[in-house]
Amino acid sequence: MPKKKSDTDAPEEQVTEAPAPAEAAQPQPAQRMSPPNHIFVGKKPVMSYAMSALIQLTQAGEVVVKARGLAISRAVDVAEIVTKRLGNGQFKVKDIGINTEVVGEGAEMRNVSSIEIVVGK
Amino acid sequence: MPKKKSDTDAPEEQVTEAPAPAEAAQPQPAQRMSPPNHIFVGKKPVMSYAMSALIQLTQAGEVVVKARGLAISRAVDVAEIVTKRLGNGQFKVKDIGINTEVVGEGAEMRNVSSIEIVVGK
Repeated sequence: MPKKKSDTDAPEEQVTEAPAPAEAAQPQPAQRMSPPNHIFVGKKPVMSYAMSALIQLTQAGEVVVKARGLAISRAVDVAEIVTKRLGNGQFKVKDIGINTEVVGEGAEMRNVSSIEIVVGK
Repeated sequence: MPKKKSDTDAPEEQVTEAPAPAEAAQPQPAQRMSPPNHIFVGKKPVMSYAMSALIQLTQAGEVVVKARGLAISRAVDVAEIVTKRLGNGQFKVKDIGINTEVVGEGAEMRNVSSIEIVVGK
């Protein structure tokens, strides 16, 4: 049976992890405006983030891989793939920080862990 | 604000305190032999690891929270819960290291990311 290509099954392209609507309305402090060398890891395949990271690394020399919640393990995968497999030994993990972020409002408010992995030369 | 970590390159711990009697009795394969203050995060509820970590912290003053694959995000949760919520401000994340481990054999062999979070005073 030939493989059918249907547009309805197109994979979701979620660039960021759907912030709460209320957040968008608020005046954003500088920390929310992510610089171009920050990569926010979500639900896309790991290699797509790894390629973005590699491009940023070759252009800017440093990239910050960020993730929240369950995507944290994927962010670690991205950092490991970039440093161990793709980077040809040029790049290394320079810093790792973890934190807790509060997402949602009112009864929906909850704590979510986050990670920031700085990869550079 | 993420916590700044330096020296992520050398996550080697040598703590020889408080051996757990129950663990000592079990025959452990070599690679699984971990010091008593290492907590390997798996599929149990987060709070169960957090409580173990807190006990180790009060006894030994330091604990290493480890995880592989998808459990990595849970290990970060454990570290955040212990430092931010349970520890009453006494403990902090001292070091975070990530790595790639090879699991399985032959055709089943694959790379898995891992994390080690050192929590102490």
